[in-house]
Amino acid sequence: MLNSLGREIPEFIQGIGTLEPFQGAWTKLRKGWMDEPTIPAPNKAYLPHQNKLCNSLEEAIERSGPHNGMTVSFHHHLRNGDIILVKTLAILHNMGIRDITLASSSLIECHDPIFPFLCDGTITRIYSSGIRSQLGRAIAMGALDIPVVIQSHGGRVRGIHTGKVQIDLAVIAASAADCEGNATGASGKSAFGSIGYAVIDVRYAKQVVVVTDNLVDYPCIPLSITQNFIDHVVVVDSIGDATKIATGTTRITNSPMDLRIAKLAAEVIENSGFFVPGFSFQVGAGGASLAVAKFIREKMKTRDIKGSFLLGGITSYCVDMLNDGLFETIFDVQSFDATVSNSLLNNRRHIEIPAALYANPFNCGCITNKLDVVVLGALEIDVDFNVNVITGSEGYVRGASGGHSDTASGAKLTVVACPSFRGRIPIIKKRVHTVVTPGETVHVLVTERGIAVNPAFKELEENLRKAGLNIKDIHDLEIEVDKITGVPDPLEYTDKIVGVVEYRDGTVIDVIHQLLEKSDYKLY
Amino acid sequence: MLNSLGREIPEFIQGIGTLEPFQGAWTKLRKGWMDEPTIPAPNKAYLPHQNKLCNSLEEAIERSGPHNGMTVSFHHHLRNGDIILVKTLAILHNMGIRDITLASSSLIECHDPIFPFLCDGTITRIYSSGIRSQLGRAIAMGALDIPVVIQSHGGRVRGIHTGKVQIDLAVIAASAADCEGNATGASGKSAFGSIGYAVIDVRYAKQVVVVTDNLVDYPCIPLSITQNFIDHVVVVDSIGDATKIATGTTRITNSPMDLRIAKLAAEVIENSGFFVPGFSFQVGAGGASLAVAKFIREKMKTRDIKGSFLLGGITSYCVDMLNDGLFETIFDVQSFDATVSNSLLNNRRHIEIPAALYANPFNCGCITNKLDVVVLGALEIDVDFNVNVITGSEGYVRGASGGHSDTASGAKLTVVACPSFRGRIPIIKKRVHTVVTPGETVHVLVTERGIAVNPAFKELEENLRKAGLNIKDIHDLEIEVDKITGVPDPLEYTDKIVGVVEYRDGTVIDVIHQLLEKSDYKLY
Repeated sequence: MLNSLGREIPEFIQGIGTLEPFQGAWTKLRKGWMDEPTIPAPNKAYLPHQNKLCNSLEEAIERSGPHNGMTVSFHHHLRNGDIILVKTLAILHNMGIRDITLASSSLIECHDPIFPFLCDGTITRIYSSGIRSQLGRAIAMGALDIPVVIQSHGGRVRGIHTGKVQIDLAVIAASAADCEGNATGASGKSAFGSIGYAVIDVRYAKQVVVVTDNLVDYPCIPLSITQNFIDHVVVVDSIGDATKIATGTTRITNSPMDLRIAKLAAEVIENSGFFVPGFSFQVGAGGASLAVAKFIREKMKTRDIKGSFLLGGITSYCVDMLNDGLFETIFDVQSFDATVSNSLLNNRRHIEIPAALYANPFNCGCITNKLDVVVLGALEIDVDFNVNVITGSEGYVRGASGGHSDTASGAKLTVVACPSFRGRIPIIKKRVHTVVTPGETVHVLVTERGIAVNPAFKELEENLRKAGLNIKDIHDLEIEVDKITGVPDPLEYTDKIVGVVEYRDGTVIDVIHQLLEKSDYKLY
Repeated sequence: MLNSLGREIPEFIQGIGTLEPFQGAWTKLRKGWMDEPTIPAPNKAYLPHQNKLCNSLEEAIERSGPHNGMTVSFHHHLRNGDIILVKTLAILHNMGIRDITLASSSLIECHDPIFPFLCDGTITRIYSSGIRSQLGRAIAMGALDIPVVIQSHGGRVRGIHTGKVQIDLAVIAASAADCEGNATGASGKSAFGSIGYAVIDVRYAKQVVVVTDNLVDYPCIPLSITQNFIDHVVVVDSIGDATKIATGTTRITNSPMDLRIAKLAAEVIENSGFFVPGFSFQVGAGGASLAVAKFIREKMKTRDIKGSFLLGGITSYCVDMLNDGLFETIFDVQSFDATVSNSLLNNRRHIEIPAALYANPFNCGCITNKLDVVVLGALEIDVDFNVNVITGSEGYVRGASGGHSDTASGAKLTVVACPSFRGRIPIIKKRVHTVVTPGETVHVLVTERGIAVNPAFKELEENLRKAGLNIKDIHDLEIEVDKITGVPDPLEYTDKIVGVVEYRDGTVIDVIHQLLEKSDYKLY
């Protein structure tokens, strides 16, 4: 069957189930959501003054009743510094547990060591927001029989809440925790800031282990995670290296090209009609988009505009803007910089929020629904403004859905900021390899070669033209770039589906096919 | 059938269902809890940038789809100053809605105006922690055909979580809220402190209305209640009178008798073996028990003991102890004094907690499970240390289960402090009219005539004797009091059951029978 973007979606996939085709960004929020079931959270009971402390992660896992076919979940707040995911899966592997569904809020380069577990039947299913590096290549080449499911941050909450992902064991790395499992990421030697993605896991998982390298006196404050959801507590030497959080996609660019794009994007925002007192703002991760914050900050000061809230992945730039009084509040679901922990701990207007409040489409209104302006990146964007943030030009899985589609669907102004080509490969395409965010939720594309406004938003285009910005038709931009780079040979795929890209509402917006094996890459 | 306390419990009650007899304070936590179902929270969906503001409470209720047989819930944080419960039920009554189940976290004198709705079929069922005043008399006299169900604060959460109470509409009074429904009780002209009892309601109710007299700029901080659970927001002139919170049961006594008991209770704690650095402490509401805090404070200073946390209903005495550095942390599920709001707002070690975390028996361990010492009151206590805090000596319903049985079941030392008689009516009985808290969870009774230790706790008795305290056998104490007061004539009851007292785990610990009508009281 075809979804509303014309993408071919199978009706059923063994190991995943029946698929529902994407029918528009807000269609299911208007109708259809009422048919979605939700699942009951597990019932538990503990006697007073029981001891939850285990001597080792092995012991905690043993106590949690591991079994073949289990689903194990993790958060990725330590990003590339995390060591708990690999450690846990190695323990399960050593216990002989097979057919594991890995449900992580994301997977990053540091998780590459689990690659052998994909090959030997230890891990047979993956739900994640992102997959990168060796794992992303392996997935693209067909390492798993069952396709991975890519979910947005809001979609992940929805998936857990509706029972599509049923977690048997959640392993929660925390930079501080007490003996009862009250825990946070905001203090301790491995502080990583918000622990917002893990909140849904602890509520629904049948068993929850908190792992910390910093056992503090009861109670651990703030209560980012609360003891009533925690079965076992383990103290380890280290949960990872928080200095590795602010690497790669989360570092503000030094590239002159990216800075130029960021400057243009800031001008777009400034003249969009949405840069008004009380506006709310989010910048995604990725080269140019983080840099936009820098320019917006200057414009806010110059024009004496005070905003309402900053949302999402929070950097020290955001904290500076809060401290400057440029924004009233920060809502922090993920800290892109360990140094923001101090602000999270001490500034009551810097608020840690769970992913459900951040972006779940199935509730009374997440905060992305209240967002005015978001700046996002892209691996590819097509002439219908559909955005790919999951597969690279070489066909590997190398990105993350993250909050991309969540924020785009909510914001009044969604700006995609990216170069028009990278390494002589065009970023603007007739058709992106993989759609993650539908074009109807993207208002404007900003590249170094010009700005393209989604034709559905005439008033925006008019505002930007009036401001003298260089507006081009996206089709012209696409042709212009093709002339510079040439049109790359199309990638070749097999019929096998290796990835299912869920839209935030659970419908399928695209699938990823297996790459035909190339001479320069061997899976095994 | 008889429960383990020898109380006769019917197997089934029309309108309530099958009853499970109480079998011991921790029996169901050891086995049986796994058979309890939990219910899924409702699914909801809202489009971005929708408006939740209604012009009136009537409009919000209309939008929530009121219907006959609905369950409507409220919190009682404004205690005797609340006006929203009565207002809401009057609106529903005016709409012609009938057969309502009222599920309030408690009912107080100020709710007397709903009495006619019990008589005319508007309200046919009540779930509450407490019932007092005219409503308590009416219930005792048989105003409702279906018995009221008395739940502890933890039991209420369990009841909602397991689906025994399924809320159609939760109406949440908030002293500050924003247009999306983020809300708190900690600021504003009607600030009442913690809103901890309402948190479970908003998560499970099919529709949730936030009512405030103080609409603030988005976002309302702190996010005690979050927007993702709120369907409608209403601004009214007033939600009530917060100065009426600290009346009656929540005011520290001036009575010399109560002060004497409080002083004795503090001596019991001091010499119990549990008055050690790092101890945790809760005092319940009620004449003598609140005053204990005063004496404990002095003893902590004298003996240079620093405690861990203060729990429960929080008074300004608790806040003073936190500020004095006597305790590390306050966990505040309910503020017994509006003036503590300032501390709740500004001191990060004064932590607002939801009732689930406070006292729900069915999770990985609520905070009452971690409690060392609790001081509680009693309307009656019997020679088996069973405590009645729900029916008065005249047989009316006039108290509240509250956190009484929750804290007693969790604490290492449960002290019941009360006078041995009141108004020439003995408080120590051979058999209490109604058991709310089972004797096995009560360690010691402190009265002005002496101290009685539960014989199950030999070491405690020894510790207290060594300290030279006046220890008596509870049977002797009972006889001694009877000699002074005489034994009152037994109350006369009909076979009709007017109240079911649930233990925190959902089993039935006692039932309340209809009082035989007396000449000095007419129901209608």
